[in-house]
Amino acid sequence: MEYFKGKSHEELVMYQNELKQKLEKFKGMGLNLNMARGKPCKEQLDLSNAMIDGSIDFSINIDYRNYGLLDGIPEAKKLFAESMNVLEEELIIGGNSSLNLMYDTLVRAMLFGTVDSIKPWSQYEKIKFICPSPGYDRHFGICEDLGIEMIMVPMTDDGPDMDRVEELVQSDETIKGIWCIPKYSNPTGITYSDEVVDRLASMKCAANDFRIMWDNAYNIHHLNNNGDELKDLLIACKKTNNSNRVYMYSSTSKVTFPGSGIAVMAMSKENADDVRKHMGYQTIGSNKINQLMHVRFLPTADAIEAHMMKHAEILEPKFDKVLEVLEREIGGLNIAKWNNPNGGYFINLDVMEGCAKEVVACCLSHGVTLTPAGATFPYGKDPRDTNIRIAPTFPPLEELELAIEVLATCIQYVAIHKILA
Amino acid sequence: MEYFKGKSHEELVMYQNELKQKLEKFKGMGLNLNMARGKPCKEQLDLSNAMIDGSIDFSINIDYRNYGLLDGIPEAKKLFAESMNVLEEELIIGGNSSLNLMYDTLVRAMLFGTVDSIKPWSQYEKIKFICPSPGYDRHFGICEDLGIEMIMVPMTDDGPDMDRVEELVQSDETIKGIWCIPKYSNPTGITYSDEVVDRLASMKCAANDFRIMWDNAYNIHHLNNNGDELKDLLIACKKTNNSNRVYMYSSTSKVTFPGSGIAVMAMSKENADDVRKHMGYQTIGSNKINQLMHVRFLPTADAIEAHMMKHAEILEPKFDKVLEVLEREIGGLNIAKWNNPNGGYFINLDVMEGCAKEVVACCLSHGVTLTPAGATFPYGKDPRDTNIRIAPTFPPLEELELAIEVLATCIQYVAIHKILA
Repeated sequence: MEYFKGKSHEELVMYQNELKQKLEKFKGMGLNLNMARGKPCKEQLDLSNAMIDGSIDFSINIDYRNYGLLDGIPEAKKLFAESMNVLEEELIIGGNSSLNLMYDTLVRAMLFGTVDSIKPWSQYEKIKFICPSPGYDRHFGICEDLGIEMIMVPMTDDGPDMDRVEELVQSDETIKGIWCIPKYSNPTGITYSDEVVDRLASMKCAANDFRIMWDNAYNIHHLNNNGDELKDLLIACKKTNNSNRVYMYSSTSKVTFPGSGIAVMAMSKENADDVRKHMGYQTIGSNKINQLMHVRFLPTADAIEAHMMKHAEILEPKFDKVLEVLEREIGGLNIAKWNNPNGGYFINLDVMEGCAKEVVACCLSHGVTLTPAGATFPYGKDPRDTNIRIAPTFPPLEELELAIEVLATCIQYVAIHKILA
Repeated sequence: MEYFKGKSHEELVMYQNELKQKLEKFKGMGLNLNMARGKPCKEQLDLSNAMIDGSIDFSINIDYRNYGLLDGIPEAKKLFAESMNVLEEELIIGGNSSLNLMYDTLVRAMLFGTVDSIKPWSQYEKIKFICPSPGYDRHFGICEDLGIEMIMVPMTDDGPDMDRVEELVQSDETIKGIWCIPKYSNPTGITYSDEVVDRLASMKCAANDFRIMWDNAYNIHHLNNNGDELKDLLIACKKTNNSNRVYMYSSTSKVTFPGSGIAVMAMSKENADDVRKHMGYQTIGSNKINQLMHVRFLPTADAIEAHMMKHAEILEPKFDKVLEVLEREIGGLNIAKWNNPNGGYFINLDVMEGCAKEVVACCLSHGVTLTPAGATFPYGKDPRDTNIRIAPTFPPLEELELAIEVLATCIQYVAIHKILA
C-alpha cells in the first residue's frame, strides 16, 4: 500500500518536520476547541426559543398542571404515534432523556424479566448483548453498569454484520439483545438496509425474550434533501410473529432542546402494557407542561419536518466544511478514510491501524478535544485502534475549520511516525 | 363503651331509618365528588401561573437548553440545599417525581447494593422493609413491585412505634429499610418527635446497609402559623456515625405544579456519589429549563415560604370545614375519631373496627369517592378495618361540605348496622 502518494523516506522525514512546525504554530494559538459530543449549537437551540419566550399559550381544558396521565398527554401521544408510525397504545411518553427510557427498560428486564422471559435476567449467571461497533458509547455504558457482557459485531455499510449476528443469537440463550442506531448510525452515519431490518425481524433466536434496542435517535435528522429511508422494524416484527422483539426509542433532544426535550418509546401493546404496569409504581408520570409546550410549538408532523429543515440549513455547511478540509489536507494520501452521511450528528473517520489513540492525544495537546479514541467500542477498546468520531455540530464554522486542520495535521504526523518506525 | 350518647335499641332503629332516608336524598342528587387523592385544587395551581404566563425570563449565561449538568443546575442546587439544610454535593435534583427518585434508589440497591452492602439486595432470598401504618400507599406499592416483604409497625402520635422498630432491626439482617413521612405524615398528620428521630439515627441495625427512606413531602406545607418542627435526621445520623443510613426526599409537586414540579434527594456525600455514578449511565440529567423556571419563579427560601402561606390560606378553610362538619354530625357519638393536623394534605379518620370498607363503599354508592379502605396499609389490608384517609384539598368548599355530610351519614349508618348486628 502506498502512503503519501509515494513520498520517499527522506521526503517523509522532511515533511514530518514541516508538520511539526505547523503543530507548534497551532500550539502557540492556545486553541480550546471541543468536538467531543454531538451537541447542537446555539443557532440550532435558538430555533426553538418560541418555547420559552412567552409566546406559548398553555391554556387547555384538562388541567395538565395537576397529577395524572402516567404515559403522556393525549396531544403528545397523538403527535408521536404519527411520527413513529404506531398506535397510541403502543407508545409511552417519557421525560427528557431517551437514554433513561432505555436504561429503565433493561433494569425492568433485569429485575422482572420481559413478558417473554422465563426468569428475570439478573437471575442468569451472565447475560450478553450484541454491540455492533463502532457504536454509541452510552449504550455500551448501560451494559457496563448493569453487568451485561458485550459481544462486538462489526458494522457494515448496511448495518451490523448479519451473518455474525444470526450465528450468535441462534446458538446462545443468554444473548438477550442487540443495540441498534438504525438511521444515520452513531458514529458511522449509515442507515440499515431493508434486508438487515428483515433479517433482524425474522432471525431465529435461542432466547425467546431476545430484544432489539432500536434507538432511532436521528430518524428525522437529515442533512440534505437526499435523506435515507429506513424500513419499519415493528411492522416487520409483527409480520414474523416476533412483535415483542423490538423496543423503539426517539426524542426531541436534537429537535428542540437537549436540556428539556421529550423522550418516547414505542413497542407492541403487550410490551407497552408491561412497561406501564411497572411505571405505575415507579413514577407519577413525566412533565406534562413540557409536553404541552412541545405540542403547542410543533403541533404536527409537517411542522416538525419544516423545523428539521432549519436545523439542516445550519448543519450542512458544517459537515461540508469538515469534508472539504479533510479532502484538501489529507485526500488521496491513503492514511485515513471518512464518510459523507446524509444525516445524523457525526462524521466517521478511520485512521491508520494503531494510530487513533495517538491522533486524539495529539489533537488534545494542541487544543482540540475529540471523543476519546475507543469510546465507540465496548469497554472503550477499539481492537484495531483506528476509529475517531468527529462531531461537527457544536463549534462555529471558523472554529470547526481550524479544528479539522489541527486534526488533519495530527493524522499525518502520527502516520509518518508509524510508517518510519 | 357507649355509642350514640346511649341511645336505646329502639331509638337506634328509628335513627337508622332517618339515616336511610337521608342517604336516599343524597343518592337522588346524583353527586360525583372525589376526595381520593391528595391533589392541589385549581386555586392552588393558579398561584404558580407566573411560570407559564410568559413572565419568566429564561436568559442565562450558561446554556441550560443544551446537554450537561447531570445532577442539576447550580441555582437549583443552591436553593434546595438551603431549604433541605444540606451541602450542594449532598443533593441531587431529579425530574418531576420524587416517587421516581425513591423507586430508582431501591432499584439501585436491588441491582448493585448500597455503598455499605455486602451484596445486591436482589441476591437475598427475601428482603424486608418496615412499613409504619397507616402510611402512604405508593411507598407500599414500590415494595410490592420490587418483591420486598412488608412488615407492618403501628404509628403513634410521635411516629412509628420505636420499641417495635428497634426490636425488628437489631435481630434481622434481611430487614433493609423503613418508610417514613416524618412531617405531617400521610395520612395521620403527625410529626415525628425528636426522640423518634434520635432513636432512628442511633438504633443498632443487624443490616449494615439499613436505609431510612425519609419522604419529607410536606416539610413546608403548613396549614397555619402553628407549624410543627422536625428534627434533622441527616445531622442526627452523622452524629451517630450512621451518615449513610438516610435518603431524604422532597419535591415541589405541592408547591408549584404536580404535573411539572422538581423532585430532589439529599444524603451523605458518599451516598450521593454512588447515586451520581449510576445516574451517569442512566440519564443525561433532568429537565434544566424546568429547573430554571422554578428558581426564577421562587428564587429564595423566603419566596417559597411566602408562597406556601398562600397555599395555606386556600387550604385551611377546607380542613376547618371537614372538622366542623364531622364535629357537627358525629361529634361525641363515640363511633369515630379524627385528627386536626397543622399541615400536610390529609385528615385521618378512624371508624369503628370492621367498618372502614363498608363506609367507603357506602360513600361510593352515594357519589363520594374516597381513598379505598385499606390502601394506607401494606398489601392494601387494614387488619382492624378502621382507617379512612380524607383528602380535603381538591374539591371546592361547598362540594367538600356535602361530601363530608355524606361521609358522616355513612359512618353512622354503618355503625348502627354493626351495633345492632
